[in-house]
Amino acid sequence: MTIPASEIQTRIENLQKSLARSNIDAVFIIQKIDLYYFSGTLQQGILFVPQEGEPFLFIRRDFERAKKESPLKNIIEIKGLTNIISIINQVDVKLEKIGLELDILPVSYFNRICQIFPTKKFIDFSYNIRLIRTIKSQWEIEKIKMAGKLITETFEEIKNFIKEGLSELDIAYETEYIARKKGHTGIIRTRAFNQEMFYGHYLSGENSLILSYVDSPTAGEGQGSFFSQGAGNKKLKKGEPLSIDFVFSYDGYCVDMTRIFFLGKPPEDYSTVYSVAQQIHEVSRELKNEQIECSQLYKIAEKIVIKNNLSEIFMGPRGRSVGYIGHGIGLELDELPILTKTSKEIISDGVVFALEPKFFIPNLGVAGIETTYLMTKKGLLSLTTFPESIQIIN
Amino acid sequence: MTIPASEIQTRIENLQKSLARSNIDAVFIIQKIDLYYFSGTLQQGILFVPQEGEPFLFIRRDFERAKKESPLKNIIEIKGLTNIISIINQVDVKLEKIGLELDILPVSYFNRICQIFPTKKFIDFSYNIRLIRTIKSQWEIEKIKMAGKLITETFEEIKNFIKEGLSELDIAYETEYIARKKGHTGIIRTRAFNQEMFYGHYLSGENSLILSYVDSPTAGEGQGSFFSQGAGNKKLKKGEPLSIDFVFSYDGYCVDMTRIFFLGKPPEDYSTVYSVAQQIHEVSRELKNEQIECSQLYKIAEKIVIKNNLSEIFMGPRGRSVGYIGHGIGLELDELPILTKTSKEIISDGVVFALEPKFFIPNLGVAGIETTYLMTKKGLLSLTTFPESIQIIN
Repeated sequence: MTIPASEIQTRIENLQKSLARSNIDAVFIIQKIDLYYFSGTLQQGILFVPQEGEPFLFIRRDFERAKKESPLKNIIEIKGLTNIISIINQVDVKLEKIGLELDILPVSYFNRICQIFPTKKFIDFSYNIRLIRTIKSQWEIEKIKMAGKLITETFEEIKNFIKEGLSELDIAYETEYIARKKGHTGIIRTRAFNQEMFYGHYLSGENSLILSYVDSPTAGEGQGSFFSQGAGNKKLKKGEPLSIDFVFSYDGYCVDMTRIFFLGKPPEDYSTVYSVAQQIHEVSRELKNEQIECSQLYKIAEKIVIKNNLSEIFMGPRGRSVGYIGHGIGLELDELPILTKTSKEIISDGVVFALEPKFFIPNLGVAGIETTYLMTKKGLLSLTTFPESIQIIN
Repeated sequence: MTIPASEIQTRIENLQKSLARSNIDAVFIIQKIDLYYFSGTLQQGILFVPQEGEPFLFIRRDFERAKKESPLKNIIEIKGLTNIISIINQVDVKLEKIGLELDILPVSYFNRICQIFPTKKFIDFSYNIRLIRTIKSQWEIEKIKMAGKLITETFEEIKNFIKEGLSELDIAYETEYIARKKGHTGIIRTRAFNQEMFYGHYLSGENSLILSYVDSPTAGEGQGSFFSQGAGNKKLKKGEPLSIDFVFSYDGYCVDMTRIFFLGKPPEDYSTVYSVAQQIHEVSRELKNEQIECSQLYKIAEKIVIKNNLSEIFMGPRGRSVGYIGHGIGLELDELPILTKTSKEIISDGVVFALEPKFFIPNLGVAGIETTYLMTKKGLLSLTTFPESIQIIN
């Protein structure tokens, strides 16, 4: 599986347009997922893209493989960073301001670049790069749709073996195994410094209210302080919800879905709160806008939450909530846009994101739904179509 | 599972001694695994350790959990980086030079720190931090030994289902499932920028000769250009080796082991080359030194390789080899020391590392052995005791 040349061409064009709009002369793409996105390969190297003209892909390891994977014309083997100087200096375009991915580029790497190009001015271009990646092409959408199909199949199978007495980790092992056999890539990429994800979170009862270092509304107990998120040893119990928040990656493209499996009949209070999460999804899907601002979607959800008097348990326990209700997703789990009260990004045709209204009910557990959506000209299309209703396990 | 207070105390003392030796006044520990190592928690925050006196742990998310996980006395909740200024400024010690983990700290994060402390001088302290982590305590060794026991059990089980016609990915799915049920943490942490690992590499025949972006001698085909390392769709065939290079993580502590499963009887040439890898391990184990310099171990291996006329296929295909024969391992897969021809680090009592002499035999596949060792006062102790001989699958 390689990325079609036409895809790469469009992406490079979008990048060059973004450079022009920002009045930046060129960009060095170094982070592996950005590199893969714009060049077709995640082999170690640097992609140099000037505002106009052909990009150059410099590869340290492995050059032969990069040539097979990337449709770009100029692929050059380098031994180290200094090898790129002569070629960059020959490029016949203005090169004063150069963009970099300063959100994740390590200081030591940056310092080496500055030493090599002491006269250049380096500017953080990561937001623009991430913004380009929010709009998925048809080729990408097909992959994400397949991930959506496979996550639904996985959940259909999970449902059959969830039962009282199994631990969260028991559920995790079985789910991972099922997902892998369906073609799950395995690895889940996150961009943000110090963040990480391993498949998802399987959280039973009150353990679903436990927070951690991870920038998601729920975290769970995890296996210990060495990996304090996700499934732990807690056993599933009658009268408790099991929240499964799972990321399925197909050909590297992810969808994110949370569904609630309830062991026995949920208390009425739980169902009532849960229905508010359902309502948020329904109202969002009813918007037939071609595009919508993130903050607007946030406010629509917030209004429903306030009306139902649930603000205090929305998106986290009281005083410890996260400030967003959803996030972009694609090659990375934590893509743009982030749906906060103030985020100005536009969800337009081709944007894929997970909407995850969740409530933290004291002494009982989380009640919420996460669905991955594609924005289309006709509004939101659900890509993770496993039923949104509470799944009762008897 | 939390880290005992006595462990944390010793680690902090080692860090403070290292600061004193380097004439650095304090260090900010930010990277999650360093933070976990020195504080006992990987909750989001900053650990401030002055050369003398009590450390301060500043936590943004999740504070309640950090207090449960970390035995440190001064744990302070912060909303953002600026919250730490007043506390740091009250600390009654000289604070001119401050160490940071510049090998992985993102530029944007670093810039915020510089804005907050405009008069401080920041110095890369990552090498020293990583060096401290190379010496494992008895508490850590117990965890690593358990990982070694479980990887051996896992390989005993794998052996039973390897057969012609299965794909590398089939083997991967089963192995992951077995390992997880034995308590494998799942996630494998790597420190280096742009590197990543998912369990390991299952490589059949010629596919074991395929290189990629990963800084390990072998990489394999992988699932596609989106994850170009590890198992792919190639089917196992009679007359071919299957190299399984697997990382087992127990309570976050890893061991790394490669064994060869050969489908049918290996050709004599293959066995001969393989025996050279065995010889490198045997000679290394016979050294009863209390400590040894990395470069010395490298040169011992090199001498054996040259004597057997195998330099051209050692540690990579001709002209594309890696420059090391082993690496430290612990909470991260890519710890110090790195065993190169010139590395001056000393492998002394308590250092854990993987030694992985591997040969790339054209048209056939890789022949090699990786074993994780603990250096003791009596020399190397193997922690991954699954038999080193070629495992014949009939």
